[in-house]
This record gives sequence, structure tokens and C-alpha cells, in this order.
Amino acid sequence: MHRSIATVSLSGTLRQKLEAVAAAGFDGIELFEADFINFKGTATELRGIVADLGLSIDLYQPFRDFEGMPEPQFRRSLERAERKFDLMEAMGAPMVLCCSNTSPLAMDDPALAAAQLHELAERAARRNLRVGFEALAWGRHTSLYGQAWDIVKQADHPHLGLILDSFHTLSLKDDPAGIAEIPGEKIFFLQMADAPLLAMDVLQWARHHRSFPGQGDFDVTGFFTQVLRAGYTGPLSLEIFNDIFRETPNRRTAVDAMRSLLYLESEARQRLAAEQPQQRVELFNPPPVAALSGLSFIEFAADEASALALDTLVRQLGFRRIGKHRSKAVTLYRQGEINFIVNAQPDSFARGRFEAHGTSVCALGVRCADPLAAVERATAMRSKRHDSPVGPNELRVPAVVAPGGNLIHFVAESLGANGLYEADFILEEDAPTAGNDAGLQQIDHVALGLALDQLDTWVLFTRAVLGLEPGESLELADPFGLIRSRGVANAERSVRLVLNVSLSQRTRTARTLSVTGGGAVHHIALNCEDIFETAAKLRANGTRFVPISDNYYDDLATRIDLAPELQERMRAAGVLFDRSPAGDYLHIYTESFEGGLFFEVAQRIGAYDAYGALNAPARMASQAQD
Amino acid sequence: MHRSIATVSLSGTLRQKLEAVAAAGFDGIELFEADFINFKGTATELRGIVADLGLSIDLYQPFRDFEGMPEPQFRRSLERAERKFDLMEAMGAPMVLCCSNTSPLAMDDPALAAAQLHELAERAARRNLRVGFEALAWGRHTSLYGQAWDIVKQADHPHLGLILDSFHTLSLKDDPAGIAEIPGEKIFFLQMADAPLLAMDVLQWARHHRSFPGQGDFDVTGFFTQVLRAGYTGPLSLEIFNDIFRETPNRRTAVDAMRSLLYLESEARQRLAAEQPQQRVELFNPPPVAALSGLSFIEFAADEASALALDTLVRQLGFRRIGKHRSKAVTLYRQGEINFIVNAQPDSFARGRFEAHGTSVCALGVRCADPLAAVERATAMRSKRHDSPVGPNELRVPAVVAPGGNLIHFVAESLGANGLYEADFILEEDAPTAGNDAGLQQIDHVALGLALDQLDTWVLFTRAVLGLEPGESLELADPFGLIRSRGVANAERSVRLVLNVSLSQRTRTARTLSVTGGGAVHHIALNCEDIFETAAKLRANGTRFVPISDNYYDDLATRIDLAPELQERMRAAGVLFDRSPAGDYLHIYTESFEGGLFFEVAQRIGAYDAYGALNAPARMASQAQD
Repeated sequence: MHRSIATVSLSGTLRQKLEAVAAAGFDGIELFEADFINFKGTATELRGIVADLGLSIDLYQPFRDFEGMPEPQFRRSLERAERKFDLMEAMGAPMVLCCSNTSPLAMDDPALAAAQLHELAERAARRNLRVGFEALAWGRHTSLYGQAWDIVKQADHPHLGLILDSFHTLSLKDDPAGIAEIPGEKIFFLQMADAPLLAMDVLQWARHHRSFPGQGDFDVTGFFTQVLRAGYTGPLSLEIFNDIFRETPNRRTAVDAMRSLLYLESEARQRLAAEQPQQRVELFNPPPVAALSGLSFIEFAADEASALALDTLVRQLGFRRIGKHRSKAVTLYRQGEINFIVNAQPDSFARGRFEAHGTSVCALGVRCADPLAAVERATAMRSKRHDSPVGPNELRVPAVVAPGGNLIHFVAESLGANGLYEADFILEEDAPTAGNDAGLQQIDHVALGLALDQLDTWVLFTRAVLGLEPGESLELADPFGLIRSRGVANAERSVRLVLNVSLSQRTRTARTLSVTGGGAVHHIALNCEDIFETAAKLRANGTRFVPISDNYYDDLATRIDLAPELQERMRAAGVLFDRSPAGDYLHIYTESFEGGLFFEVAQRIGAYDAYGALNAPARMASQAQD
Repeated sequence: MHRSIATVSLSGTLRQKLEAVAAAGFDGIELFEADFINFKGTATELRGIVADLGLSIDLYQPFRDFEGMPEPQFRRSLERAERKFDLMEAMGAPMVLCCSNTSPLAMDDPALAAAQLHELAERAARRNLRVGFEALAWGRHTSLYGQAWDIVKQADHPHLGLILDSFHTLSLKDDPAGIAEIPGEKIFFLQMADAPLLAMDVLQWARHHRSFPGQGDFDVTGFFTQVLRAGYTGPLSLEIFNDIFRETPNRRTAVDAMRSLLYLESEARQRLAAEQPQQRVELFNPPPVAALSGLSFIEFAADEASALALDTLVRQLGFRRIGKHRSKAVTLYRQGEINFIVNAQPDSFARGRFEAHGTSVCALGVRCADPLAAVERATAMRSKRHDSPVGPNELRVPAVVAPGGNLIHFVAESLGANGLYEADFILEEDAPTAGNDAGLQQIDHVALGLALDQLDTWVLFTRAVLGLEPGESLELADPFGLIRSRGVANAERSVRLVLNVSLSQRTRTARTLSVTGGGAVHHIALNCEDIFETAAKLRANGTRFVPISDNYYDDLATRIDLAPELQERMRAAGVLFDRSPAGDYLHIYTESFEGGLFFEVAQRIGAYDAYGALNAPARMASQAQD
């Protein structure tokens, strides 16, 4: 499809926006009027810049408060339109968006609206321009696409058609099924927007909180497929009013935007595949998303000194050193099915991350059947492939760059639990020290600390590239501000990430961010089968846990029916507790390593499917009191 | 009155909150349960800490989902209550807040609710504790204070009373008049909250956007007077859920909180004065707010080098140097009625500001009848007085410290236009250079750049200390994020400030802030009688203005009926235009001085009462394109 984006969706000056849009591979733009009004150049100059970048101006927008007006205002608006048509001719924009009237002067008279739009279309036709009429969700008399379509039908002019915007339909919970009945050629333009479900005034919601398809909660694919069923063949465009996007570096936003369209097309293609409809447009067809089956390893960036400190730390956690890399200053640790890699190789990718962010996680390994196909999917979805230097007899582990710069490696399931490590490492175990193993079994989840403007980026990346689905979004009280927390996981729950955003600059999460950069791993949660036994062993190894107030346990007893013995065991061990209808979650947090990264030990009982987030305030308050 | 505040209103650990609350002069606290649950200490230890700080725990809160429940849940809740009563006894909290039930299990049966609350009160009475019942605006069956009062009446227990919260009543637009009919002794506790008027779900509004009385849009004084008319004599408390307060340094929040109560009491006292009611509580009675009659001067902090640069700048603006300070390295400039003071005195307050923030405004002078009374008002409202060293024969100009650290000087009207300057300065005018005067007459407004968490602080400060009233709150698009802008002015409009907040870290406003600190002057707007003549003279003097795109004028012509000649004059001169029903506003912005401070030249026509804010995006976009 012809892929387009409204300039209002990005930060920057108009020229910077155009450059970012072109670099992300778009075909065209919707020109938001304010961007042109404040542009220091003529319409003709803009036409040249846009053409030089290989873009087209597909739509000039918006034209407001036009239809259903008393005669004097209508006449004046026609004059206004002629002046905008002058500009559109000069800049080469073939279509104007006329949104439904919000003026208190507007009359509830569809026939009048149709007649006035007919006149506007007639004026446009004289210059070979087209007019698209769109129902705003907060339009005074026209708020539904069905109403707008009735008016367009009645106006009956070849230069007048309908513009659809998923936000206006889905925000009002209007049924998009009727769109399939509209003749495709009368749909002149399509704007796709997603949004989180928010209980607020629809105008405020629309102006501040839209997001790219795949970042929100709407069934945007369902909407899009109805438009395709109608036989629409025009541009697929994004018009996103979002306070955060207004300040996010626009190169990243533009990549997110393109990824969202590619994802939307591929999802719609799948949904339509069963129908075998007459294919009127070509939808993006990437390799299918790879089914991930688990986290294979976590890699830490270090230098020589911090590698020693990490050695102490992970041994306290019950890990054993089991190998050294064949060609690099890289050490492998293991416990249960968990592999930790400490990479202190000079001049490596890891060393670069260490120099920028200190001791930190620089890569995750995920298991899947076909790593090369997984990387193809990722690059098709506009992620960058990363190739590390490979020594003789070592395996090439394909990797992609995640937002923020860390790597995701794809490890072939066919290698089994040890194949990768046998190839790349000289396995030479420590002498097994009795009692050191603490019973940690798998990586339960990896929690990331993100800057506010990275959350939507990560939701879309994990969905489109890794096939994970987001869960509930929670807000948690740190003593110095709110934390927003959202889990993303695969269907089998063998890969779980938690995306944490500090809304405040003053929380520990935010301060960690400022040290480690956005997209950093904030903590790592490891599973065990008996948290009391594991915690006792870890304590014996020298691991220190964040102490939990006695008052927490007194309150817990009033909230949840627990055996007194279990409750007292938790109190004695400092273990936190959460219960859902599906099961229980027992967990405990270690103190931070160098003031940043820490670990969580967790035991899942039954089908508990969350992350004990409601206990995070107990941890954060405890850390703040130290 | 006994002044109290809920711990949830402040950032920090519980101990830090208590210290801030005590330092601000509060008498007591409402203990928010989560603060206690995460506190590392027992209830008895907390009692000691609170007592050592001279505070009382007036309320333990909240106790949820109690009334109108099926028998098993009711029995379990009674057990839960007994455990909370244990804690309350240990910590010395005499009352618990029971908020109306939000559980889906709750039954719509006021008689049952009353019976169950009676039982709870009976349990409380055995320990000499009290229960206050509060209607939450989103309570399942009880959302209005009238409903809650009916249930309390029906329960008829001396240890059960009503808790009122202005937010729950005013957010639902319920009429508070009925409160005056409730027996005062049955109102057990009063929580006062203000809020901006937001079109959103009331629960989200309540949890994230409450503010202190005087910071929002509610008629909190009207609500409070109804409670006083009822004969209420209990604590006056604040329970403010606000995302920004959660991250704001709590010492500042606590001062704002105390100021808001003092302001509320003094406003209510005035409103009740006419009624001469039987005075049952003593309301705060500060000196009345001083009527300001204009801005007398603006003082710039500089060193020797930047004083020279400023000299060039203000001469380009048409100012003449008219005097040198008798004892300090301070220079006076004048044009029309505008006085600029450049303070380069070493070891002065100004030099301290210069060293911290660079060349910047460090003080404003405002005119009023009685400067000492104005300072008394300010200090009564918890602002700090500032006394500068005074040389022989110089006038002492009383001053207070504004939020962020700049000074507000109060200049006696009796001094006339020149009295202050004749006393303190050796007037020795430059030779009047023909043509230098540009026709600037008065200070139109001073615009401040504030950090996000300073806006509410400034609204309350300007209201309670300076008697200014806030206008509409606008959001303006900078190319790198949104700016929130709100004017505050006195009734006569002779003193106007504009409070600008960047919601993004990446706008020019935010970058200026990071240089000059919060609460800095962002730009200074100066009035003239003929903007074209003034702009021409300023250009001739060497002043450079921010260029405005031609496209702005093309669009302006489509929006507003303007004489073509005026429009072309504006285009040629780069003058911006705004029209309201009351009048017109013509204005132009200078380029920034050292990348920060700039000036605006403005001409008001008719009774135009705003600041041309909708043209700010044209300025911001132009600056970004340079």
C-alpha cells in the first residue's frame, strides 16, 4: 500500500519531520496545516523539498467548521477554501480533509451539509482537487462515519468522498462492520490510530493519547479489514496526536510508525487470508513471527574489575562458573536452566555498552526453532540485525538490536540446553561446592526501566518483532513518584518481560535510568520451586534481601486468608505474597548491585499470571528508607 | 482551627513526610494506610515520632468496602477492623475513615449499611475510637454526602459520624448547601481538596489531579463556609492525590499546603463576616491582600561583563541610562514608565542569582499603597521576607522571596513615579539621543518559565500573597513538545504575569529552565501605542526580531477580516495578531539574549485581555528553524 503519515505525529520542524519520514521509508505525508503556517518557505519550495525526499503530499489537513453553516459563514468559508486550494495547487497536494463541523453555529441539516459540500467539491473539481469529509467523534451533528457517508452520498459529487479514521469510530464504540458496504472508491483516505482505553472526554483523549496501531487497545486490525473489504485502494496513513510523540526524537517515532503499518498490514493479511477476497491491494507479507520458547541466557557488559564483582554476586546467587569463551574474555555461569554470561572482552559490543552504561545487561538470548527466520522477521519489521565477530569453531548467534541499543539473540532450539555453550565455551566447571546451588531454575521475567517515551516503542517492538502480547497497565507508588508497569509475554508464558516507566524524575527507577540509559534491564526475576528453601540458601551464600516491614504482614493477614504458619514463614523470610483467582505468587527482592540492577526470586503457584506488581511499593519504600 | 494533612499528599518516606509537615506548622496528620504498611517501625514507634514532632494522628485511612455487604464478608470485615483498631490504639489515632463501598458485592440497602456501620461503631466505642463515614464520588450505592448522612442518621451511634470531602461533592456538581443543616458535632472530619475542571472519569480525576485549595477551579470557599455554618469545629485537613505532588520535594509541598489552608480560612472568614455568625472556630485572619497598582521595575542580575552586554541590549530597546545607585554597582534605565535596573554589585543577592543562573531577572518591583502591610500579608501567608543591605539616605524597599528564589519588592505608591529612584540613585541622564526612544510605555506582562511541579505553587502564591487571579489554562505546541500557559493578573490588569510550563524536556522553554532554574523570567512584554512605529524604531536601534513565516499572514487573512493594508503592514513588520470579542492584540518578539531571555512588544486595542498565546507556536517554530 501507499504508506503515509501526518506531520502532526512527529516532533521537530517541518523539514526535520520530512527527513525522518523519508528515512523511515514512507511514501507520503498528510500535511498538518500548522506545520505549513509556521514553515519558513513557500508552498512551491515545500513541493521541491518533499519531492527531493521522494515523498508526496497526499492530504492537506484539516479544513474545519465548513458544512451546515448559515449563508454568510458558508460564503466566507468558500473564500477560505479557495485560498487553501491555491496553496494545495502550489504544493501539489491533491486532497483536503474537511472534518465535521464543531461550531455552535452549525445546523443539524444533512441536506444543507450535503449541498454545501457539493459546492466545495465543485470548486475543488475546477482545479482537479478532491475533498474528503470525515466525521469527528466530537462533531456537533456528524460524529459517526455512517452519518458522514449519508451526507457524502447525498452530495453526490465525484470530487467528494469519505475519509475514515479508526480513532473516531473505535473511541465511540461504533461498529466498523458497515464500512465494508461502502464502495471502496468513495473512501478517499484512511487514517489509522490506536489508543489506550481511557475513561475520559473523547476530545481530550483524541488530542493527547492516540498511538500507533499495535501500541494501544483498539481492534485496529478489525477496522482495517473492513476498509479493505470495501475495496479501498488509497493511502494507508497515520494521524497521531500524542503528547509524548511531540517530544520524542522523530527518527525513532518514524521507525515506530512504519513498523506499526507493516504490522497492521501483516495482521490484516492473516485475518483476510481465510476469506480469500479479491486482492485489490498488496499487503505487507513478512516472515511469520517466531514462536519463542524461553530465555536462553542473559549477558552482562563488564570490564575486568566489574567482572570480578559480578563473579562474587552471581556465586552468592548460587551460580557456578562453568566455562570460558573460546576466544573472548567471556565467562559462563549456570544454575538450573539459567545461563548468565559475563562479557569483559575489550573492543567488543559489550564493552561499548559498559563504557556507556556501566555494569549492565547488554543482551538477552531467546530460544526459537529458526533463528534466521526470526531475524528476517525482525528486519522486515525494521529492526537492525547485529552481527558479532565469530571466532573459529564458534556458532554465529543471529541477533537484532532492541530499542535502546541492547541485543536480542535468537538461539536455535535444536542446540538443546547446552549446544550453544558447548560450541562457544570451553566447559571447565568449578569444583561443585556443596550447598552453593540455591535451587533457582529458570528466568521468570526480565524487567526493563524505560524512559517515558520508550514505552509505546517497546510495546510495539515486542508485539511485532517478538510476538509477545501486552498485559494490564498498572500504576505503582514509589515514595518519589508513580511507576507505570506493564508485562508483555508470549502465549506460553515462557518469555516474559516487564516494562517499567517512571513518570517522575526522582524515583530510584528514574535514577537508575539516568545511569544506565533507556531500555536498560532494571531487575531479573528467577524462578524456584520452594522460595523459603531458596531464600535460606541464598542468605547462607551471602545474598542480602530488601527488608520488608512487619506492618506488611499484619496487613496481609487482614486481606488474605492464609495459614498462620505460612504467614509467619513469609514474615521471617521477608517473602512477599500476591494472590489472583488463578494462583499465588511468592517473591523476594535482593539488594541492588552498585545501586542499580537487582534480582527477584519468585515462586509461582497454580496459574498465577502476573508479577506481584502490587508489592513493588513495599520494595520501593523499603529501599527509600535505607 | 486544627490543621491537618493526609500523608498521601506528599512525596518521600513516612518519616520525611512527617518532618516536612511539622516544619510547615501543621497540627496533625491523616495517616494513609500504605504509608504505615511500608513503614519500618511499629505503631508505638510511630506514635513516638509523631509526638516528638508535635503532631497528632487525627485519622487512620482508608477502611474500604465495609457497609452493605453479605454476612460472611461483613463478619470478615469486622475482624479486619479489629486488627486496624489494634494499630490505632497503639499509634494513638482516635478515628478511622470508612469510605463508601465500591465492591460489586455491595447491596443497595441503606438500612443494612446503617446496621453494619452501627456494629462497627459499637466495636470502635469499646476502645473509645470513632468511625467517620464518607461518600466516595464513585461509591457503588452511596456517592453523595446526603446519602451518607442518611445512613449515619439511621445508624444513630455516638461513635459514628460523617466525613466530608469537598472533592467528592464538587466533582459531581452536588450542591453543598445542605451541609449547613447537618448538626456540626455529627461531622467528624473535613477534607478539603480543589481540582482543575477536567472532563474525565471522576475516579481518575480524583486519584491523579486533585490540588490544594486555591490551586484549582472549585468553589472550595463556598463548600467550607457551609461546613462552618453547620457548626463544625473539628480538624481542617487536606487529602490530595496528585501525581506531581508525589514527586515534588515535600518541604515545598508542605508550605503550599499550609498556605492553602490559611488562604481558605481567610477567604471563608471574609465571606462569613457579613453573616456575623456565632463564631465557633477561630479562622486565620491575615492582613488583607495588598491592592497592586502596577509593575514599578524589573531588576537584572549581572556581573561586570554581562552588565555591559545588557547595556547594549536595553539601549537597542530604546532605554536611556538615567542613574547610578548611590552605593552599589547598580544602573537604572528608563523608557516611558518602565524602569530596568541592572545589578552588578559583587557580594549582593543579585550576584548570587547571577552566579547560579547567569544573566537573568532576579527581582520585580510592584507598586502598592502600603508596602509594609503587603509584606505582612506575604509573611502571614508563609512567604519569607527579604531585607537587602541599605546604604545611607537610601530607601528600604520591603521584599519577599517568590517560589524559585527571585524577589518581589513592594514599592510605595506615595513615592510617585520617581521617588524611589531619586532616593536611591544619582540621576545623571545620558544626553538624550534623538530617535533612541522607541515609544515603549509600560510593562505589559512578565512571563515565567516554570518546572512542571512549580505551576500549582505559583498559582497559589500569586493568589494568596499577591491577590492575582488565574485565567484560562492553554496548551501550545512547540516543535519539541507542549507548553502549558496560564496568565495571572490583578482585577485592574495593571499587574500581569504569565506562567509557562514545558511538559517536555526538549523545548526551548525547558532548555532555558535548565539554565536559569525554575521560576525564572522567560520573557518581558512591553506596551506601546503604535507597534509599527515602535518596531521600526527598535529595528533602527539594532533590535532583531524573530522572523514570522509569510504563510502565517496568508492564513491570518483567511481567518480574520482585516483591512488589507493592516495585514500587509503586519507582514512587512513581522507583527503577530490576535483578536478576541473584546479587542485586538498586536505583538512581536525579539531574538533571545544569550539564548535565553527575550522581549515582546505589544499593543493592546480595546479591552483585549489575553497574551496572544495562540501565536506563540509561530514564534517557537521560527526559533526552532534558525
